[in-house]
Amino acid sequence: MPQGQPLSVPDDGLTTKQRRNRPLLAVHTGDGKGKSTAAFGLGLRGWNQGWNIGVFQFVKSAKWRIGEQTVFERLGRLHEETGEGGPVEWHKMGSGWSWTRKQGDGSDHAADAAQGWAEVKRRLAAQTHDLLILDEFTYLMEWGWVDVEDVVETLTQRPGFQHVVITGRRAHPALIEAADLVTEMTKIKHPMDAGQKGQRGIEW
Amino acid sequence: MPQGQPLSVPDDGLTTKQRRNRPLLAVHTGDGKGKSTAAFGLGLRGWNQGWNIGVFQFVKSAKWRIGEQTVFERLGRLHEETGEGGPVEWHKMGSGWSWTRKQGDGSDHAADAAQGWAEVKRRLAAQTHDLLILDEFTYLMEWGWVDVEDVVETLTQRPGFQHVVITGRRAHPALIEAADLVTEMTKIKHPMDAGQKGQRGIEW
Repeated sequence: MPQGQPLSVPDDGLTTKQRRNRPLLAVHTGDGKGKSTAAFGLGLRGWNQGWNIGVFQFVKSAKWRIGEQTVFERLGRLHEETGEGGPVEWHKMGSGWSWTRKQGDGSDHAADAAQGWAEVKRRLAAQTHDLLILDEFTYLMEWGWVDVEDVVETLTQRPGFQHVVITGRRAHPALIEAADLVTEMTKIKHPMDAGQKGQRGIEW
Repeated sequence: MPQGQPLSVPDDGLTTKQRRNRPLLAVHTGDGKGKSTAAFGLGLRGWNQGWNIGVFQFVKSAKWRIGEQTVFERLGRLHEETGEGGPVEWHKMGSGWSWTRKQGDGSDHAADAAQGWAEVKRRLAAQTHDLLILDEFTYLMEWGWVDVEDVVETLTQRPGFQHVVITGRRAHPALIEAADLVTEMTKIKHPMDAGQKGQRGIEW
């Protein structure tokens, strides 16, 4: 809520306006639903502000396509056609990233993941996007596919004004420490507990 | 993840397919961010499935307009123009609902809230929407502006195939009991704790 007031005013030499406009590093973690969904919801807000949106889905399945991808790609085309909102790029690891010609067979996830992170680093340095969503990125840190120190240093030292949202379970403590905003999604009750499988429109 | 398997198969006489296609009552609660944002993210998925989406924001401020409203209304127009996705209606309580000619002065929130719930009940009975998002609805139950038993009975007895997502802090135990899917968003860290105010594109 925008009416919310900070609990304390930090002694950081910044004005309220400067502080308000600081780019955020946000993390959505926990075992519950809504981590990615809320990240893409933020993407909607950003698109509406005219931001350049970059989504990087660090998922292993090439087949897996969620409704949000279709809608965001449609919003990106809408921007090209009418100038509304902002540009959108949506990249999915699957079996090799779309920016490489060489499509792997998807068996070397560690290499694909490292390549994805290298591309994100290049884009952060080039300030390509206003909002970057690194979906399911926490697992790369957990599995040692990227170097935790490198990730934290790159993110905290990123130039300019770039919001970054990272999703995934079991976020690394160093990432939580570095983040400005951390929300944990906790499962209280899930239909699978009652024997229900995932369904179209809800899970994808 | 759709690959997830239920922990147990209930003895309810339904086939897996019937069970998979049961409409959900979902609740996003807790003090953290992402409750509404994740609900609107589900709305994106539903829109992409061609669902008729109805959003009812039980918020008191008439001025408050979030980016999602603009984007969803745009998606609704896109549906009208091209047939893509599904139709969208977005209603906000503010100082009186948009479906009434009579605009109140916004001072009688309890009456506005009761009127909003009455309209939602009518639409549930008429099966107007495939997905209804009742944003910040938990407070109406907390404050006694709607009858808890009436809400629970109406929702659990709703006809046909209508998904309902309810957001807000401190969800009533009877609502949690009635829901199929409950996620709690917990704040681990928030920029306001570090003296930062809400900012455009992130909070609205």
